[in-house]
Amino acid sequence: MNITGHSFLGSTRADDSSQTFHVSNAATGEPLEPAFHSASTEDLEKAVSLATQAFSSYSSVAPETRAEFLRTIAEKIDALGDEITPRMMAEAGLPEPRCNGERGRTCGQLRMFAGLIEEGSWVDARIETAEPDRAPIPKPDLRSMRRPLGPVAVFCASNFPLAFSVAGGDTASALAAGCPVIVRAHSAHAGTAEIVASAIQAAVAECEMPEGTFSMIFDAGIELGTVLVTHPGIKAVGFTGSRTGGRALMDAAAARPEPIPVFAEMSSVNPIFILPGAMAERGEAIAQGLVGSVTLGAGQFCTCPGIVIAGASEIFQSTLKDGFTEAVPATMLHTGILNNFANGLKKLQGLSGVDTIAEVSSDEDNKARPAILKASASDFISNPGLSEEVFGPSSLIIECGSKQDMIAAANSLEGQLTATIHATDEELAQAGDLLQILEQKAGRLIINSFPTGVEVNSSMVHGGPYPATSDGASTSVGTGAILRYTRPVSFQGFPDSALPAELQSSNPRGIARLVNGSLES
Amino acid sequence: MNITGHSFLGSTRADDSSQTFHVSNAATGEPLEPAFHSASTEDLEKAVSLATQAFSSYSSVAPETRAEFLRTIAEKIDALGDEITPRMMAEAGLPEPRCNGERGRTCGQLRMFAGLIEEGSWVDARIETAEPDRAPIPKPDLRSMRRPLGPVAVFCASNFPLAFSVAGGDTASALAAGCPVIVRAHSAHAGTAEIVASAIQAAVAECEMPEGTFSMIFDAGIELGTVLVTHPGIKAVGFTGSRTGGRALMDAAAARPEPIPVFAEMSSVNPIFILPGAMAERGEAIAQGLVGSVTLGAGQFCTCPGIVIAGASEIFQSTLKDGFTEAVPATMLHTGILNNFANGLKKLQGLSGVDTIAEVSSDEDNKARPAILKASASDFISNPGLSEEVFGPSSLIIECGSKQDMIAAANSLEGQLTATIHATDEELAQAGDLLQILEQKAGRLIINSFPTGVEVNSSMVHGGPYPATSDGASTSVGTGAILRYTRPVSFQGFPDSALPAELQSSNPRGIARLVNGSLES
Repeated sequence: MNITGHSFLGSTRADDSSQTFHVSNAATGEPLEPAFHSASTEDLEKAVSLATQAFSSYSSVAPETRAEFLRTIAEKIDALGDEITPRMMAEAGLPEPRCNGERGRTCGQLRMFAGLIEEGSWVDARIETAEPDRAPIPKPDLRSMRRPLGPVAVFCASNFPLAFSVAGGDTASALAAGCPVIVRAHSAHAGTAEIVASAIQAAVAECEMPEGTFSMIFDAGIELGTVLVTHPGIKAVGFTGSRTGGRALMDAAAARPEPIPVFAEMSSVNPIFILPGAMAERGEAIAQGLVGSVTLGAGQFCTCPGIVIAGASEIFQSTLKDGFTEAVPATMLHTGILNNFANGLKKLQGLSGVDTIAEVSSDEDNKARPAILKASASDFISNPGLSEEVFGPSSLIIECGSKQDMIAAANSLEGQLTATIHATDEELAQAGDLLQILEQKAGRLIINSFPTGVEVNSSMVHGGPYPATSDGASTSVGTGAILRYTRPVSFQGFPDSALPAELQSSNPRGIARLVNGSLES
Repeated sequence: MNITGHSFLGSTRADDSSQTFHVSNAATGEPLEPAFHSASTEDLEKAVSLATQAFSSYSSVAPETRAEFLRTIAEKIDALGDEITPRMMAEAGLPEPRCNGERGRTCGQLRMFAGLIEEGSWVDARIETAEPDRAPIPKPDLRSMRRPLGPVAVFCASNFPLAFSVAGGDTASALAAGCPVIVRAHSAHAGTAEIVASAIQAAVAECEMPEGTFSMIFDAGIELGTVLVTHPGIKAVGFTGSRTGGRALMDAAAARPEPIPVFAEMSSVNPIFILPGAMAERGEAIAQGLVGSVTLGAGQFCTCPGIVIAGASEIFQSTLKDGFTEAVPATMLHTGILNNFANGLKKLQGLSGVDTIAEVSSDEDNKARPAILKASASDFISNPGLSEEVFGPSSLIIECGSKQDMIAAANSLEGQLTATIHATDEELAQAGDLLQILEQKAGRLIINSFPTGVEVNSSMVHGGPYPATSDGASTSVGTGAILRYTRPVSFQGFPDSALPAELQSSNPRGIARLVNGSLES
């Protein structure tokens, strides 16, 4: 397809604008054609107005029809695979298998949400039947279920041009919930965004959804994103990106006359704790696994382990040293991320007590050089700078001389997406205190494995206390993500005919429901 | 028991302080003995420190034991009924049956949450079993459930000295979830608070809970509340009160280095729509019901209907006129609320287009005089001042000449706890557009009834979009309230022995669980 660089406003496209930008080739830095036109505030007004109009009808579309719409989007994205992959490889510097794999995940997510809403029990239907003779006052008929919030603003992630971008998890879960979506494309992969948006726009038309169900704006800067988040028509926000960016959106949303929820997935160093027995038993294997986990995708995963808390071990460190010395310099998603990684690493290396175990040497200035560093537990605990996320292929080993050191290090952590323990069975049986601390710090606890590789299913919590996310009670991955864009609504004294199907007495959708406090299924 | 006026810090009581205050008798304005001592910041530090210490053990207490603890609190409160009622009558000006009834509701809530956690399915346990042979990568074992957030700050409500105060819904749901609680007592009913707090303190000791499980601070001012909400040890906030107060806490929590959720239930005018057919059929009966709903408890319920949107009807207005003329002047909860009501009513009466249909005449300056006002739809839509909550026994009729007027009035509403429609069956079948608007505005929709009278069960949503609450996805009444103080946590690759009982393969607690996406029960 022909990429034109114009924002998507419902069923139409925005006009040319005076402010344009080009996406750079991630590997070479060369600008890619065409120019993208930043949306105007009028364009944004139109998108929000269309979304607001669409909400009343889209939120009432039967779940089966919404599911068909999601599946149609997936089909159309798959059909565009041959166009998406080369553009995504150029824009994001990602290898072909990753691009194809991420497309599979994206379409899989859309189909997962289609299946979820078709089955329907996710709405948490609850029924309390009337007792007209109850004393001292009659009990009314009262029924509740989750309903969509309204138009949702979705910000594309730099590190997942498909799976957390235009038709990614945020969009899929919001559309599944019954919310129109306005996407703010990421300027580093705007071409990929346009191809995917064209698939959604076509699916809206084909499935006869209201045109405001989906819009997408391009913007060279960040101002329009704030305008979007503070627009009274927007009722929730999905974001994956930096802590600075996410916090800015949180603050803007909280300061609105009508504050709205922001679901921002931001920053995590994903600590790995290696207990002495596990280290003695398999320090070499853990080190090898760690090299793989840290360098996977050039370390550009939210779950990349940036901190490893472990006792000293020669074989562990020498394996890490070998692994990181032999690691391959890696193209990063864009120059900004590459520079942030290089600067962040340099800053970390300059902190008192931080030693470099190994750093890939390379004269390729346009690639990230994987590195493994170390510091003492006391330096880690006394200097919060050591626990700041450095997004990219590096990790910092915190050498702990005792279990107390580990506990103290665990207590000093901020909120995390994940926390991992490597331990023998005997150690695990004694690690209740450490597990309890980590449960308070992270959304996902992992034993004897690595945090990269995020399953997309009903049990996944890809969330965690601030600053891992803005809302530690949410997940942005898995079926639970749909709950973010909904709220429960009670219906009191409604005749059956005025109730949503999910709450009608005959249970026409055949979903699991709580009836007078007991499960009916 | 002997009321001493000292804050509760775990198992101890705070010392005398230089700043003291007295509660006034609601009916007479006379100060009641004894003096209450404002807690110091050191007292608050101690309470938070104890709560933080308590969390790791209290959050791991078996649900059956926590349930027994909640039931013990209820028993002890019931046993103190003869002391609570007279103090509550004096402090809050509420009649004896209401005091006893509210005690019943409070203890009922504690027992409801005890039953909920004993049964256990509320934790939303989800299990995805491993598939080691899955290609291209093995599927890990992944399980999730809801876990408690940490120490919770609870602010007592002025209008529910028991059911939304020291041992009220916020405290009961937080304790049920596994969170220690620090209560900020309401200075208008501090004596009632102290009696109830003594019951909880005794239950903590008797059930051998960690002492920091419960603390309660007295404060003459509002500063200490902000210190509490911004304390790094506090992980969530429950509040019922004014829009100004709630918003201040929301803003303070959002501005923390680590923002935390605030569940504030604040402001609602609970609109009632009367469609023409229902008005013609039973305008008199609806008017009688409305008089009762507006004047119930001196209009001091969050669900008091402050706005009635209806076509003109002589019998309706004359019945209202008679009802409000004959209504009884009412003692309010405290002088501040009485003055706010009088001033709010006067301000509303002074707005252009607002007429008074009836207002109780009385020379008792210390009592609220119920009133019923009216205005046109156009004035209502053009002047947001007409839709501001006036907390107390008054309501404003908005006369609508057409269905379009009603739709426009509905669209102009802010977020509400409830929205009600009175309609004939035929009208209801045609009211899809109005219902859809109201669903976006309110947490609970009611047909042919009145919003006062809030059921405490599994289907109740006592919530709604801002400014009704700070978090429209939450409810502060009913079993769903427990979810506010929890978040989901995933456990990956855990051996059965290291998992919480709820997630162990044999399902030792016998709860409903989602296993590989299907319900196991």
